[in-house]
This record gives sequence, structure tokens and C-alpha cells, in this order.
Amino acid sequence: MYTVCVRNHFMIAHSFRGKVFGPAQRLHGATYVVDLELRRPELDADGVVVDIGLASTTLAEVLSELNYRNLDEQDGFSGKNTTTEFLAREVFDRMAQRIAAGHLGETARSLSALRVTLHESHVAWASYEGALPTSAGA
Amino acid sequence: MYTVCVRNHFMIAHSFRGKVFGPAQRLHGATYVVDLELRRPELDADGVVVDIGLASTTLAEVLSELNYRNLDEQDGFSGKNTTTEFLAREVFDRMAQRIAAGHLGETARSLSALRVTLHESHVAWASYEGALPTSAGA
Amino acid sequence: MYTVCVRNHFMIAHSFRGKVFGPAQRLHGATYVVDLELRRPELDADGVVVDIGLASTTLAEVLSELNYRNLDEQDGFSGKNTTTEFLAREVFDRMAQRIAAGHLGETARSLSALRVTLHESHVAWASYEGALPTSAGA
Amino acid sequence: MYTVCVRNHFMIAHSFRGKVFGPAQRLHGATYVVDLELRRPELDADGVVVDIGLASTTLAEVLSELNYRNLDEQDGFSGKNTTTEFLAREVFDRMAQRIAAGHLGETARSLSALRVTLHESHVAWASYEGALPTSAGA
Amino acid sequence: MYTVCVRNHFMIAHSFRGKVFGPAQRLHGATYVVDLELRRPELDADGVVVDIGLASTTLAEVLSELNYRNLDEQDGFSGKNTTTEFLAREVFDRMAQRIAAGHLGETARSLSALRVTLHESHVAWASYEGALPTSAGA
Amino acid sequence: MYTVCVRNHFMIAHSFRGKVFGPAQRLHGATYVVDLELRRPELDADGVVVDIGLASTTLAEVLSELNYRNLDEQDGFSGKNTTTEFLAREVFDRMAQRIAAGHLGETARSLSALRVTLHESHVAWASYEGALPTSAGA
Repeated sequence: MYTVCVRNHFMIAHSFRGKVFGPAQRLHGATYVVDLELRRPELDADGVVVDIGLASTTLAEVLSELNYRNLDEQDGFSGKNTTTEFLAREVFDRMAQRIAAGHLGETARSLSALRVTLHESHVAWASYEGALPTSAGA
Repeated sequence: MYTVCVRNHFMIAHSFRGKVFGPAQRLHGATYVVDLELRRPELDADGVVVDIGLASTTLAEVLSELNYRNLDEQDGFSGKNTTTEFLAREVFDRMAQRIAAGHLGETARSLSALRVTLHESHVAWASYEGALPTSAGA
Repeated sequence: MYTVCVRNHFMIAHSFRGKVFGPAQRLHGATYVVDLELRRPELDADGVVVDIGLASTTLAEVLSELNYRNLDEQDGFSGKNTTTEFLAREVFDRMAQRIAAGHLGETARSLSALRVTLHESHVAWASYEGALPTSAGA
Repeated sequence: MYTVCVRNHFMIAHSFRGKVFGPAQRLHGATYVVDLELRRPELDADGVVVDIGLASTTLAEVLSELNYRNLDEQDGFSGKNTTTEFLAREVFDRMAQRIAAGHLGETARSLSALRVTLHESHVAWASYEGALPTSAGA
Repeated sequence: MYTVCVRNHFMIAHSFRGKVFGPAQRLHGATYVVDLELRRPELDADGVVVDIGLASTTLAEVLSELNYRNLDEQDGFSGKNTTTEFLAREVFDRMAQRIAAGHLGETARSLSALRVTLHESHVAWASYEGALPTSAGA
Repeated sequence: MYTVCVRNHFMIAHSFRGKVFGPAQRLHGATYVVDLELRRPELDADGVVVDIGLASTTLAEVLSELNYRNLDEQDGFSGKNTTTEFLAREVFDRMAQRIAAGHLGETARSLSALRVTLHESHVAWASYEGALPTSAGA
């Protein structure tokens, strides 16, 4: 299995609901350094897993929807704890959608899996990985 | 699959038996920077993989049993080479036990897998990963 | 010159005023990974620059005053842009005060300089360094 | 499953063919920081995954075949794009061959899998992982 | 003294002349991860060392003049060894020129010093630092 | 000022005397990842700060005198706390001696300064830096 990974980051404010979060129930924020891993069993005709330029651009677009925002006030997140693991899944879903829509090119439709890792500090990170919805029919 | 990872470290002395170890047969030591990864397929009601506070505290407890010690003189390690990979398994087993005993909370009993990575320098690391003994019955 | 460095982090929300900040004028947040460097020309009788335990504990105390907070609502920061470089100076000043007050022990009063670096992402950091106010009289 | 990883690097020149590569169609170069991961389900009699000395030496040998070279002029690469993912597979295959030939010792023949990761910058890496050809008969 | 640092990278081919370089006399290449540090004793009215957006954009421009090229064929480098330390100075000079020309804004003219670090692998880097030519008259 | 840095590591056992060290008074150990920085104001005729091959080899020699040893039993360290900052100075002195003795070549005698940093974990490091004894007469 081949994997290609590109890195970027975004910076948000948010707060959590639930005793388990202790002082993180207050409004605070985070820098998330994001690793997007794209996987497939064989290289395409150019010898790549994916057009890394398109992958980077699309990741930047997805992160710009979240970047420099207070997630407590974003539609779609109301009543949810935007934890690191939750946001890893969110980035995963938004990337998977765009891959299915052809934003990463035609051959990217045969990508078999993605992993999205969000590093929140030098001592903690979370990730979500899964098969791509589109790969079942590939 | 979701993963959450927390990092800590411990510092020990030890020596190895066997020609394969060369000068490492002498009493020496190491800093092990430890990454504990906890995995499960779905988030709990709070939107997390695990109570990261409890995970960190419990990892610190497990490492404190090893930290600042000469492993050659520890019960349970006699006659064994406490290599990086051996110690990764040791930390795995001690964490798995405490998860089964409820130290990370009730919902942590449904964690499906752990991975423990020990970084011994900027050019070498070892890890042990496996399904959690308790997850079979979950 | 000897330097000892300890690392910790804090996570805050804030917003900036001024066109130069672009989208960062919106309420957002950051994780700051903090490196505190302590300097002196000679080691003390124990062979150390400073009691690293006290240095770590005191840094954690200073950071806990900022951690998990919206800096826009903190006294002392009103009307100020809490940029990375500004916060590096803030942590510097709070550490310098505590060193002068003896929180790091008597011999720490002869520390000659501090540097505080705040890493805000994998592609940006800022620092403030200076002689310690107390070292003039040392 | 146990994993042991050793790190090294090599520095090459090359160029790519295909519009997808944009300015990278020009002759340029890269430093590849290489992580070689070796996996097996149980430790050997010495308590290790593999003789880490032999693993490091063999990896250095494999990389020296590529290091300080213009890959456009190397036999075996003509007409191919020596992308990061392609080179990860190349290092994988050369290591797998040597493991099968006994260069890492007899017990290394029971290694179950390898992963080779090539870091090309602070924002991009690629890897190839697979079961070892020799493990089928093990 | 305040410092702000931004990171980027470039990838080039080159070769060296002189026995001291051993196999690096052959055409090969490198990824250079670049840290640009900008220094000044006081913050400006916005609370920053420099407009970090302009600093990043200008660094990207400077690196694009070198990126994806064979330095052996670039004007200005003929007969010179484009070592890591030489290139650190080159990036320093090109940034200093643009700062003097106002590319980083008016207040950037009072920056007192720059440091440019080029990381060539996980085990080697080089840097050049100096006062800014323009700061003498500031 | 130009700086070139090379990285290596060593692994030792030791114990400390003095209440300030708490549990580190027990026999334990550490991995020290070592950064050796070499400085001079101008490049030599080859366009380098120093023969990086000789610098790396000599650093490896110096570290091999300490590597895989119990420092409590080494001549010269009796009655001393071999703290991270103490060992940074030790490596500095041993490198400075060899530079003065010509181990890094003739032009290395005009190196103006060294800095030795020992990283003991992901959250702590210490360094010693100073002018080179030989540079006074240069």
C-alpha cells in the first residue's frame, strides 16, 4: 500500500460542554497541525498516488472553512463538542466529498483510504481514518 | 477508526545480554519518549475517544513504576533483555490492565486497540500494538 | 554560557485589531508550545543551571494563568493585540518576576538571562529574550 | 504486532515528466529522510524484532546506491518518474531482497512486513508498506 | 530582543568542487527547510515584529528563484560551491535587499537583524545571521 | 556569522547526589541527542564553515568515549553530578581540544565558537556555548 501525506494547519476558538473537559469548558482555542494521508494500492500512470498539488490546494480550501473562526458559532457544530477527534473526522468527510466530486482529479477517485491527523500540541494528537466511500464502487 | 495519542517519557538504566547487543551489553541507559495511542470505531457521548485527562494520568502512573530506575534490578525483568520493543509491550500490558480495571472510566472499556511507541533517539523507535483483551467481550 | 530549557504549552482564544491581521481579526485561537530557556555563566554547587523541577512547576503556574482562556476578556490585555511575540514577552515578564521573588530558589537569582519561545504552528514561532532585571545587582 | 524503526537519509537529483509536476519537470533535487519499519508478531530469543545494527547497516548500504546521484541517469530508472512514493517502494524492494538473502540474519527471515517512509520536506512524505515476499513461506 | 520566525522550503540540484566533498562532488540534490528569523528590540504599533504575511510571501518569492532548479546552471553561482552555509547567506542577502526596498512594509526597515537557517536533513543544518545593512542608519 | 550543525546521540547510565534531584538520585539513564554547532565569521576557500565529514567523525569519536557507559564509574566524573548541562560542557571541551589539535583540519583552527546542545527528552534540553580557546590567538 502506498501513502502520500501533506501537512497544513488551522487555528480556531471553541469551548466544550461536559465535566470531563474541566477548564476546557471555558472558551479557549487551538492550533491544529493537520496531516492528510491518501492511500492506494498502485501508482497511477505518472508514478504518483495523487496530484500532490491538488491535494494540498484542496486541503487548504477545506481548512480555510474552519480557520480563524469560533467554532461555537459555526452552523453544523451547534450542540456538538468540536474535539480534536471530532474535527479529524470533519476534515476527513470534507476531503472525501471533494475527492468524490473530482476535485483531486479523475484518478483520485480510486484512492482507497484517507487518514486525517490533527496535532494539537507537542504531547497530544488525534486522527480519523477510513476507507473512502467512493472506493467501494471503484 | 478514531485514534487519540498522548505523549510522556521515562529515563532508565539497563544492560543487555547477548553478542548481538555489542557495547550495549555494558550498563548504560535511555530516555524513552512514549506515545500512547488509544483506538475505537466511534466517539462516546461527549465526542471523545477517551477521557484524555485520565489517559494521561494513568500513563504517567505506569511510567513512574519504571522511571529513574535500573531495570536490571527490577522484579519481573530478571533474565530478560529490556529492549525498546520489550518495554513497549510492557507499557501496553500495564495500560491494558488498567483500562480493564476501569482506571480510564467506564466507556474506555470499549476501546478496541492500543499502540505504544517508545522513541529511544532521533534515529530509532519501537512499538507494540494489539487489540485490547477486554474488547473481545465488548 | 550554559542554557537549560523546559517545554510546556497553553491553549487560548483571542482576536486581533488592525488590517495587517486579515482574517485573524476574527475570534480564533492557538496552541502555544512554550520553550523557557534559562541562562547563567557558571553551574551552581549541584552542577545545574537551575532546579529544573522548580523551573517546570513555575512555568506551569504562569501558563495556567493564561491557559484555556479568551485573552480578549482578560484584565491587562484590553486594547492590546496578544500576538505571539507579545505573549512571549508576557511569559518572560511573569517568569522574571517569580525568579526575582525566589520561586526558583536562591541560586536562581543569579540567572543572567531568559528566552521564551512560543511555537504557534509547524511554520511559525516568536520569542522574547533579555537579561534578567535582577542580574544587574548580582 | 511489534515494530522497530531506524532512520537515515539520502540526497539525490532528478526531474519528472508530465504536466502534473509543473516546475518539478526541471532538474532539481531532494533530501529524503528515510524511516524503515520492520514488523513481526513475536520477539526472537534475544528479545528483539531484528538485529538493529544489521538493519541500520543494510539500510545504509541500500541508500548508498542512490545517495549523491542524479537518478535521471541511473540504470533501471530510465523512463520512470522517481517520485517519493516510487522511491519508497524501491527502498522497500531492495530491503526485502536483502532480508530474503539473509543480510539481516536468520531470524529476520520471519519478519512479517516492512514499511518505508520518505520525508521530502516538513510538509510532505510518502511511504510504501507490504507483507514480506518471504513471509508467505515462513 | 524579539524574534519572529517563518518556515518554508525549496528543492534543488547541485554538485560541489573540491576533494573535501567526497561523493557530493557528483550531481545530487537537497531539500532545504528554511527558517527565516526577523529581529527587533521593540514591537510596532500593531504589537508585531513584522507583518508576518508579507514576511512569508517575500520569503516564498525569494525561494521560488532557487526552487526546482539545478544551481550549477544558475547565473551568479558559476564557480561557487552552493553549500548549505553559502545558500543560507544567499537567502539572507536577498531578504535583506527586499526589506531595504520596503517589500515587508515601512516599519520593517527598523528590523535590527536576520537569521536564515537551512535544514538539509535530520542530522545537519547551517545558518547565516547578521545585522541588517539598513539598521545602521535606523 | 555562519553556523554549521551536526547531530548524533549517546546513551548512558548515571545517578545524581543532592536533594534537588529527587528520584533522579537513583541509578537511571538517558539518551542525549547532541547538536554540535560550529561558528565562524567567513567561509573558507571551499565555501564551508568546516569539513562536515571530519566534524561528524570527531563528534562520533568524542561521544563513543561516553556512549553505553555508567558515568558513575568513569574516571574524571567521580564526585560530580553528570547533569545535562555538565555533559554539554564536557562534550564542548573535548571537541575544543580536538579542534585545537587539528582533528578537524587546519582551517578549523579559525572557528570562533562552538555550541553543544544535549536534548534529554521532548521537554528538556541543555547547552553550553563559548568562544574557542584557540580563537584568541587566531
